[in-house]
Amino acid sequence: MQTLTVELGERSYPIHVGSRLLHEASLILPHLALPRVAVVTNTTVGPLWLDTLRDTLTAAGVEVLPIVLPDGEQYKNMETLGRIYDALLGARMERKSTLIALGGGVIGDLTGFAAATYLRGVPFIQVPTTLLAQVDSSVGGKTGINHPLGKNMIGAFYQPRLVLADTDTLSTLPDRELSAGLAEVIKYGLIRDGEFFAWLEANMERLLARDAEALTFAILRSCRNKAEVVAADEREGGLRAILNLGHTFGHAIEAGLGFGVWLHGEAVAAGMVLAADLSMRLGWLAESDVERVRALVRRARLPDQAPDLGFDRYLDLMGLDKKVEGGRIRFVLLRRLGEAVVTADVPEALLRQTLTTHVAAV
Amino acid sequence: MQTLTVELGERSYPIHVGSRLLHEASLILPHLALPRVAVVTNTTVGPLWLDTLRDTLTAAGVEVLPIVLPDGEQYKNMETLGRIYDALLGARMERKSTLIALGGGVIGDLTGFAAATYLRGVPFIQVPTTLLAQVDSSVGGKTGINHPLGKNMIGAFYQPRLVLADTDTLSTLPDRELSAGLAEVIKYGLIRDGEFFAWLEANMERLLARDAEALTFAILRSCRNKAEVVAADEREGGLRAILNLGHTFGHAIEAGLGFGVWLHGEAVAAGMVLAADLSMRLGWLAESDVERVRALVRRARLPDQAPDLGFDRYLDLMGLDKKVEGGRIRFVLLRRLGEAVVTADVPEALLRQTLTTHVAAV
Repeated sequence: MQTLTVELGERSYPIHVGSRLLHEASLILPHLALPRVAVVTNTTVGPLWLDTLRDTLTAAGVEVLPIVLPDGEQYKNMETLGRIYDALLGARMERKSTLIALGGGVIGDLTGFAAATYLRGVPFIQVPTTLLAQVDSSVGGKTGINHPLGKNMIGAFYQPRLVLADTDTLSTLPDRELSAGLAEVIKYGLIRDGEFFAWLEANMERLLARDAEALTFAILRSCRNKAEVVAADEREGGLRAILNLGHTFGHAIEAGLGFGVWLHGEAVAAGMVLAADLSMRLGWLAESDVERVRALVRRARLPDQAPDLGFDRYLDLMGLDKKVEGGRIRFVLLRRLGEAVVTADVPEALLRQTLTTHVAAV
Repeated sequence: MQTLTVELGERSYPIHVGSRLLHEASLILPHLALPRVAVVTNTTVGPLWLDTLRDTLTAAGVEVLPIVLPDGEQYKNMETLGRIYDALLGARMERKSTLIALGGGVIGDLTGFAAATYLRGVPFIQVPTTLLAQVDSSVGGKTGINHPLGKNMIGAFYQPRLVLADTDTLSTLPDRELSAGLAEVIKYGLIRDGEFFAWLEANMERLLARDAEALTFAILRSCRNKAEVVAADEREGGLRAILNLGHTFGHAIEAGLGFGVWLHGEAVAAGMVLAADLSMRLGWLAESDVERVRALVRRARLPDQAPDLGFDRYLDLMGLDKKVEGGRIRFVLLRRLGEAVVTADVPEALLRQTLTTHVAAV
């Protein structure tokens, strides 16, 4: 097991990465104010991992309330959130009870938001069971739900007390979801860690083969990159925006195709290629750099071409993005492989070129 | 106009109290990051004050989106919250847009919670138009909504950028609501300001006659008391619990009678008398002290007797209170008039005496 601490003053918390962590009550107990927890999971992850975690906690004298939700991004909404509140209130969970999120990003976001708002805030712990959640959504304190008019439009910044990334849980992850997680891993290399990008170029096949050592390295390195950014900018005042590389395009792709058609990581992968292409048109990247991005995305078995939704539709879909400021769209682009920059200064003609020449028919 | 600053480090904010504040754009403009605001109000306050505020802002070049909700505690729920989100997203309100709550405690709580969670947090301003909201709910950062199983069960701690308490808005307040606000005013005297309690004994009739000078004094003094408590304990770790004097009983009364039958302030008033009675049974107050509390409550035209719901029903209703810890109920009681104390150490027999001897048939 290896540990990384996210430095946020009194809200600092540890991330443990390793094998068999769900069997170690000693990792969790120090973070519980009362021996009462609610474990929120879904119908896919529950049957695989809920008993393991529950047995560990019960044996340590902790009372466990399981809350099992339907699986899928389409359930990340007010109604499902209401089900969590109902269960917590029905069981009279108190302010010092702890919520544990056992699942992927949707479970983490929902549970984190429930924890942020139940009784105006109760402690919570993240136990991410997908690569995407382990490297991304369980670090940084973003929680929330979707609205019919946009993703993650309602939420809170709320930090967990602890993140347990048990690499054993990746053994049952479908190939497509593993790849989706790799999109965010590649992102960290691109935005601020050129050395890690080169390491990924050399080790992509080991990751796809689920080599434990390679995965642990990639998870920790990704979390460290994210943790450093979050520590410098907890509330998304500026720097943190670079974590959204590929996401403005990605959100438009997800919304344009209908949420759930492409996985979030797939949309982000294609979005990162678009961002690299646009960066080239601004004179920041060489064509060979864009090709390196495209090649690595492809090797991770991710889409390197965005769907052709039409320029106007893309603009419209991006207009509702949370990163919009004063009516202008701010883009996260690349100065070089390993350095991101945020700019609102993108000529529309260049944006049009990117969104019409490097796309594939839907 | 007089100003008080709530000291919360980088979240510090001013409270302005005085007449004609809704006409002063210069008080609001420095707190807007973008000249776009949504004003959330209800069908009672809107017709009285929305045009005044809107004209002031529009004349200063600020774009105003009005959101008018139905009036009443029964609308402080997820559905109404959803209506605010819908309106904000429909108008594409951005992260630096500001929400303004124009109304009483329900509007303030709903709007504050919407602001805390829309796009994971946008700025907001409180313009309380009831005495209760001016002395209590607009200070301290508590926001939230009710759940069928309990009041304020879902919410967030979220601070406004500014509170504008325009005393002109009290001119149209019904007598019953003025009295309800006075319950919280009396509370500040009881929990930590014996001198203020004595001032209230000497000036209750002036307050009931809506003497402007007396009201301004009472509002500022109440806000200062609350602000000092909140500054010392923003997240309700300990001290802040004293602000709940009368509220554990009060919530039980409101829930037991059905929300809306008694006003919140009325229930709190009767709850404070119960708390004083229980404090006497613990040997902390003299019978004459309890009589002073009862007399002042009565002079404020508030109920000095709680409804007889039955001891077991009271216990059950109090069991769902947020102040419960480890299965025990923590009470806010009085060591003397002007000093509150929080204790879980109350013999059930004494509690039974209080809840069965000084109550009136429903």
